[in-house]
Amino acid sequence: MSHVEIHPQLLADCYYLGHLPACELLLHRNACVPWFILVPDTALADLLDLPTEHRDAVVAECAAVSAFIKQILGYAKVNFAGLGNVVPQMHLHVIGRSEDDAAWPQPVWGNFLGEQTYASGQVQQWREGLAKMIGLVPLES
Amino acid sequence: MSHVEIHPQLLADCYYLGHLPACELLLHRNACVPWFILVPDTALADLLDLPTEHRDAVVAECAAVSAFIKQILGYAKVNFAGLGNVVPQMHLHVIGRSEDDAAWPQPVWGNFLGEQTYASGQVQQWREGLAKMIGLVPLES
Repeated sequence: MSHVEIHPQLLADCYYLGHLPACELLLHRNACVPWFILVPDTALADLLDLPTEHRDAVVAECAAVSAFIKQILGYAKVNFAGLGNVVPQMHLHVIGRSEDDAAWPQPVWGNFLGEQTYASGQVQQWREGLAKMIGLVPLES
Repeated sequence: MSHVEIHPQLLADCYYLGHLPACELLLHRNACVPWFILVPDTALADLLDLPTEHRDAVVAECAAVSAFIKQILGYAKVNFAGLGNVVPQMHLHVIGRSEDDAAWPQPVWGNFLGEQTYASGQVQQWREGLAKMIGLVPLES
């Protein structure tokens, strides 16, 4: 069951990992950086317009994904953003960054990252790790 | 009195507007977009690493600045980000965007915005508006 109707551009760009209590969790298909996208259940466009309690719950899930990137994937740096200038549906970027990635120190949007695909099984392994660590209800892969 | 030692690059790029309870508030000198920067009092680098209560307080101040951008300055869209790949001190960007700005729909970082300076008195007027609306303790201009 999908909790939120997700914009087709996000579905085209990402793997759909599963559900968190306040957000759907996606993973960008470009494997050059671990680039997670959280889609809250709201018709509002901007994170900072959410009512306080909802906003705090969404940011808490972003923090949980950030902890996965740092503690499990071993990244020291995470970029966090809500932009939505192109895809209007609210979505939050939580991205592991390193000095070795091709876009460093620029942001990932509009800068050359290269293109890599996830190895077979990798996405499913992260789904399972996220289920265990932050309570993701995984979608069938 | 400065509550936080602010990185010299941020001080060079911005007007220092004043203090909020959890953050110092800066305004980028490029007037092409209303580009506010909040600097929390922390030695951590990434917003999503802050303890929950501190994180929620910082994000609440970002939301208050966003409300000023939307309600007073009349922007429909706000971009929000914590990056810190270049300046390591934690700082949050809260930026009014419009389809008329030169970087639209790209993010502002690394994209051509043009260069404009604030008219005399404008920064002080916003300082006073922010004092009234969101409780900014303004620095002397």
